Amino acid sequence: MKKVVVIGGGTGNFTVLKGLKHYDVDLSAIVSMADDGGSTGILRDELGVLPPGDVRQCLVALSDSSRLMRSLMNYRFENGGLGGHSFGNLLLSAMEKVTGSFEKAVEEVGKILYIKGKVLPVTTHQVRLKMLLNNRKLLEGEKSVYLSQEIDQGYKSIYLEPDPKANPGALDEIMNADLVILGPGGLHTSLIPNLLVEGVVESLIATQAKKIFIVNLMNRKGQTTGFKVSDYIKEVVRFLGEDVFDFILVNNQKPDHELIEVYAEEGELVHNDLQESRVIMAPLLGDVHLQSKKDLIKRNLIRHDPKKLAQELMKIVSHL
Amino acid sequence: MKKVVVIGGGTGNFTVLKGLKHYDVDLSAIVSMADDGGSTGILRDELGVLPPGDVRQCLVALSDSSRLMRSLMNYRFENGGLGGHSFGNLLLSAMEKVTGSFEKAVEEVGKILYIKGKVLPVTTHQVRLKMLLNNRKLLEGEKSVYLSQEIDQGYKSIYLEPDPKANPGALDEIMNADLVILGPGGLHTSLIPNLLVEGVVESLIATQAKKIFIVNLMNRKGQTTGFKVSDYIKEVVRFLGEDVFDFILVNNQKPDHELIEVYAEEGELVHNDLQESRVIMAPLLGDVHLQSKKDLIKRNLIRHDPKKLAQELMKIVSHL
Repeated sequence: MKKVVVIGGGTGNFTVLKGLKHYDVDLSAIVSMADDGGSTGILRDELGVLPPGDVRQCLVALSDSSRLMRSLMNYRFENGGLGGHSFGNLLLSAMEKVTGSFEKAVEEVGKILYIKGKVLPVTTHQVRLKMLLNNRKLLEGEKSVYLSQEIDQGYKSIYLEPDPKANPGALDEIMNADLVILGPGGLHTSLIPNLLVEGVVESLIATQAKKIFIVNLMNRKGQTTGFKVSDYIKEVVRFLGEDVFDFILVNNQKPDHELIEVYAEEGELVHNDLQESRVIMAPLLGDVHLQSKKDLIKRNLIRHDPKKLAQELMKIVSHL
Repeated sequence: MKKVVVIGGGTGNFTVLKGLKHYDVDLSAIVSMADDGGSTGILRDELGVLPPGDVRQCLVALSDSSRLMRSLMNYRFENGGLGGHSFGNLLLSAMEKVTGSFEKAVEEVGKILYIKGKVLPVTTHQVRLKMLLNNRKLLEGEKSVYLSQEIDQGYKSIYLEPDPKANPGALDEIMNADLVILGPGGLHTSLIPNLLVEGVVESLIATQAKKIFIVNLMNRKGQTTGFKVSDYIKEVVRFLGEDVFDFILVNNQKPDHELIEVYAEEGELVHNDLQESRVIMAPLLGDVHLQSKKDLIKRNLIRHDPKKLAQELMKIVSHL
């Protein structure tokens, strides 16, 4: 069975894992520990735990348990002191407190959810993502980076504080992989934070695994404004030190005109400017069932389809 | 296999269930829904859920899952908006929100915990316990009743508001039981609230099951001051309408002198004043490992031993 390792954080990871779960592959998810927004941020601040949110999403994506259990994990309390917390975050944090270890907590919650594969935090150190912009403004925390509208004006540095060592288990996964998948996901908030952890870049260069980069569907205004496929690769290669990618997967399906218009304020579609054999163009969009204009604004409706992504990825895996 | 039904709420239930779990009996716990203190009270107020605390204790008592899962269920968050909540309460409340039913939530959490037996809320209506004292003071809520120091001065009435109907499943359990156990537990806060639910008294009178009352070890000052065994029976029979008890189980083991002294401020030992063949006297105290005087005050150290309780109860079951 081929070993496939997915590196990222947030919804991008979720989509890839959810698609690949149905195939006969040995799956691992390596998850960024930089998240500090929302429920996760409150739990970090109040309880001193590691960020559970992205890990929760990966666990749910890989879960073979009932629909009820998956709904429970994502259930958000609406009122009072619990307001905004997702139940799965509380489960991971309580389990971390009881076991004394976030890694152990992830493993135990994985058992409760009958997950197929493994979920590993990229580091088990408490870190904050920081970014120093060209205009000397310092963005402190992933949430600040995520919300900034000035990143496309250039930045001097992006780093984790304090400088963390990688989870050895995560590095083992990379070294033993047949295929490593990076992306899709927030470039500076979900993908690059993994590369800032000591040991990850070295392992990505040393491993015999093939590497694929899955390019985002949309640029985010103020973050990756005007980015083409080559810009995504260049930005990641800055941190890798060399271009390690054997494949680059790019969507070539056009969303409905109406959707593009609605999204115009948030960003535009990513266009491919690379004429290389390693670039795989494929229709990768999820179906959209439009209810009303209101829905369009509320939810992220231009998104990857887990099935289509997995089909393209499995074509590669079958040739390894 | 004999069917044993335990009626109560709180720690008393826990002790009986924990002991009986290791025997070959068909166990059910029927749990009072009047609790409104602490974490449970906050969840009721903020989320509108049914009270999870006593149900959680019964589920943990019957759980065949790992020590880790049981620790997780009882883990209490210490800080921030989550401070004071036990994880198990949050699990039950989130499950109630996701399934839309407290009964279903209890069933699903029971599966997660591999419980042996069943746990059933006595009613699935939202109720408050109220007590009108002789001095015309109205105690509103179980917590107020629990904290009152004036109940031994007499009360005019105790009732649930609004007047609830019983959970039909709970009545079925009583009707099909071979043995029904009432107590130990807070007389006005954990035991009698079950008898105030429409249908419970009728079923207790109609059932062919033998009934046993387990008398508390200690009286609580201001609540059951000076109560002897006959007073406990009289007080319960007021609500039952007739004396249904085939057995009365009473502790005859003396706690250490030191412990009695420490407890003097909270209450005194219950003495038996009944000379009847249905009264079973037995040593029922749990072992106490004294660490320091501080421990004595913090924890309830004069308590029933689950094993000793279960041994006495199984003597009865084996003759049914």
